[in-house]
This record gives sequence, structure tokens and C-alpha cells, in this order.
Amino acid sequence: MSQNIYDNPQFYSGYSQLPRSIEGLSGAPEWSSVRTLLPAIEGARVLDLGCGFGAFDRWAIEHGAKEVIAIDLSRRMLLEARKRTAGASIDYRVGDLAKLDIPERNFDLIYSALAFHYIEDFHSLCRTMRSKLRNGGRLVATVEHPIFSAPRNDQWKEEDGYPFWPLDNYLNEGERVRPWFSAGVTKYHRTIGTYVNTLLDNSFQLVRLIEWGPDAEQVAKHPEWAKERDRPMFLLFAADAIG
Amino acid sequence: MSQNIYDNPQFYSGYSQLPRSIEGLSGAPEWSSVRTLLPAIEGARVLDLGCGFGAFDRWAIEHGAKEVIAIDLSRRMLLEARKRTAGASIDYRVGDLAKLDIPERNFDLIYSALAFHYIEDFHSLCRTMRSKLRNGGRLVATVEHPIFSAPRNDQWKEEDGYPFWPLDNYLNEGERVRPWFSAGVTKYHRTIGTYVNTLLDNSFQLVRLIEWGPDAEQVAKHPEWAKERDRPMFLLFAADAIG
Repeated sequence: MSQNIYDNPQFYSGYSQLPRSIEGLSGAPEWSSVRTLLPAIEGARVLDLGCGFGAFDRWAIEHGAKEVIAIDLSRRMLLEARKRTAGASIDYRVGDLAKLDIPERNFDLIYSALAFHYIEDFHSLCRTMRSKLRNGGRLVATVEHPIFSAPRNDQWKEEDGYPFWPLDNYLNEGERVRPWFSAGVTKYHRTIGTYVNTLLDNSFQLVRLIEWGPDAEQVAKHPEWAKERDRPMFLLFAADAIG
Repeated sequence: MSQNIYDNPQFYSGYSQLPRSIEGLSGAPEWSSVRTLLPAIEGARVLDLGCGFGAFDRWAIEHGAKEVIAIDLSRRMLLEARKRTAGASIDYRVGDLAKLDIPERNFDLIYSALAFHYIEDFHSLCRTMRSKLRNGGRLVATVEHPIFSAPRNDQWKEEDGYPFWPLDNYLNEGERVRPWFSAGVTKYHRTIGTYVNTLLDNSFQLVRLIEWGPDAEQVAKHPEWAKERDRPMFLLFAADAIG
């Protein structure tokens, strides 16, 4: 079973204070890029894997999605999601992406934000996702960028007046335990190559790969984000289910 | 016109001493991975972009390629290539990948080893390559990995007894001038996302993406290669031409 750090009170309390937790999609600086990857939402049947507070699910319903099933491991987050999206017909369910067990199939879209890097067996997850999509259906996902997750020491260094990211261990995939609002959050580092090839091996066709960083406008507004262009924090991808 | 560093005597002399220059494909540690990307060579019409000393072209002819056209900017390298492959029916031509001008079309395979990072306009090159491949034909290429080409300071650092790669500037694409057997070799840094999306935008379908590093066996044989697993030096990809 996947680690359920989100139900840890200390973690939950810290995580709840993030801009993306408070403001939803508009608090997620990568959202405008993610949006370019999405297919038509109107009339779509949507499965959200790792829905958190339900920000995307609300957006999908507001944009005409026909059905939204939203899965998360954290009961605490689902409780809050239900509060925030009261009235919207979103089907929230407790579930572990590592052993996804839902009877529905033929989704038009599987969406997942910043969840796959908690899953050890990505191959198995891709196989499951493919079986849940209709032919031609789309997967749109964001994950922590492998450059971000790779190193032993994931803290910026500085020399000669500029910051740099001390990269090592990039090709050595596997568990990374990191302090993040708690003593130890377990993540799984895998390379971009592994993300892409595992999709290709499971009857997905790659549509887009975005190594996300803030654009000039965002950096002007938030000068402290400048170094996010030195080492990308998020990887975004879209892939279509093929026969 | 692209920089022709390979005809610089000082550069040429240094480059000629690399294991891959002396031993050919067996001196290129990534070759066994590249080989997994190649389609059937027997009977294939092959275009090699940046052929250097012609090691791949000889291999292709030996494995039954029907026709091999091999392009390089460096007359000096082509002279040596012709010497090394005397007797093999390889059509060597001087040419600049930045303005590829050959009448032939309908190739089954375009191969390119460590050349695209010298080309500023990858979009234009992809469009040209697509026009030279038959439908279903394949592009197999290797480039310097963007993690390798990105930083201002491309020298390993060490701390607490282990080496790390001081990554910065990853998302800032463009020219990188580097000393390499000469004062200044001009390369063009672009991200993995840009390589992939530019292929997708030019009617290629991604088949495989390999972030290459030495495997355990290679590290055992060459312990000094261990840190190549900390930051990959080469990116390998295969993409098929679609209609």
C-alpha cells in the first residue's frame, strides 16, 4: 500500500497552507500549461487520480464534464474536497493508485496532478490506466521533475553569486525519502526516459512533454521563482490511448 | 552556416584520439543501446547526418544496407572516412545539416550521432528529415544530454566525498560555447521537452527515449564512469515518420 502521508496531521497542516491548496488551480503556476494538454472537457467522462482538495474536479464539472470520478488515498483530503465542491456531482472515492479498483471504464480523460511520483510500480499503473481509457482517450499528468527528485541532497547551493542545483543519482531510480512538512515523505524517482517508455510500452502514444518552469511574466511577478528556470520542478505530459 | 570546428587542426587532433574515433562503434559505450533503436538494416536506404569517420556507415553496409549516403561538414573527417571504408559503397558528401541539400528521398533510416546539438534550428532540421524519410521510416539519433549541456559551469564539483553536477540554466535554451580540444566549440542547448515536441510537431511519432548511462557491467570495467550515472551525458531517441 502507498504511504498515506496526507492523513498525517502535521503534514496535512503544512500542505494545507500551500498556495495551490488554498487557491486551487489559480494557485498552481503550471496550470496554464497543463490546460494546453487537456482535450475537450464538455461531455467528457473524467477520472482524477490523486484528486486532493478537488480543484480540478470542480473545474471539470464547471466546464461541462459529464461525469467525474475522483480518487484519493487521504480521507482527510476527500472530506475537505467534498466541502469545497458541495453541490457539484463529483464522485469522490478513497482509493490507492497502486491497486486501483474501480469497475468503470471508457473514460475520455484520466487526469493526475503530482501523484505518480508516490507510486513505485509505474508500469502496472500505466497498464491499469490504459484499461480504463477508451481508445483515443487521453492521459494528462504532472509529476515532480526527475531532476528535482534525483539528488541525495535536494537543496540549492550557491557559488560566485548564483544558485545551482547539486545533481547526482539521476540514473539511479527508486525510493527517495524526503522531509516535507514531516520527517519522511517517500517518493519514487524515475527518469524522463522511464516515464515516456513505460507509457509507450502500455499502448500510449506520446502527445506532449513539458518540462515546466515559470515564464518571464511569472518571474517578473515572483522574482524568487527565477531559479526554477535553472532546474525544472515539474514534468507535464499528455499521452493518448491507442489500440 | 554551422561552425566547422572539426576542420580546426587543433580540435581534429584531439578529437582523433578519442576511443570512439580510434575504435569506431565499439569505442562508443552507448552503441549497444543505440543498436536496440535501429530498424532492420538489410536492404535499407540509409542517410547518416554527421557521419564523422564513417564507423556507422561501414557497419550499415556490412549488415546489408542497400545504400548509404553520409553527410559531414568536415572535409578532413570525410577524407579519413573514405580511407577507413575503402571498398565499401558509401556515398560520402560534404554538407551542412543546417541547410541540407540532397535530392534523394524515401530513406528507410536517418541516423545521426552526436550532431544535432551543433544545429541551432532543430525545427527546420526535423521538417527536412521528415521530408527525406518514407512513411514509416525511422530517425535514430543521439545528442548530448541537456543536463550535460545546460550549465554555465560544466565541471563536476565534490562535497562530502561524492561528486555532483552543478546544474543551472536548464530551461534557458540557446548557445553554449565550450572549450573542447579548442578555445570555443559552439553548441545549442535545448531541453528534452523541446527535442521531443519538435519531433512531434513535424510528423514524427516517438518510439523510444533513452537517457544513457553506463550499466553495472560497464562501471565495473571502467570505475571512472560511475559518475556518468549521476548525470547522463547522452540522450538517444527513435522516432517514426508518420503521414
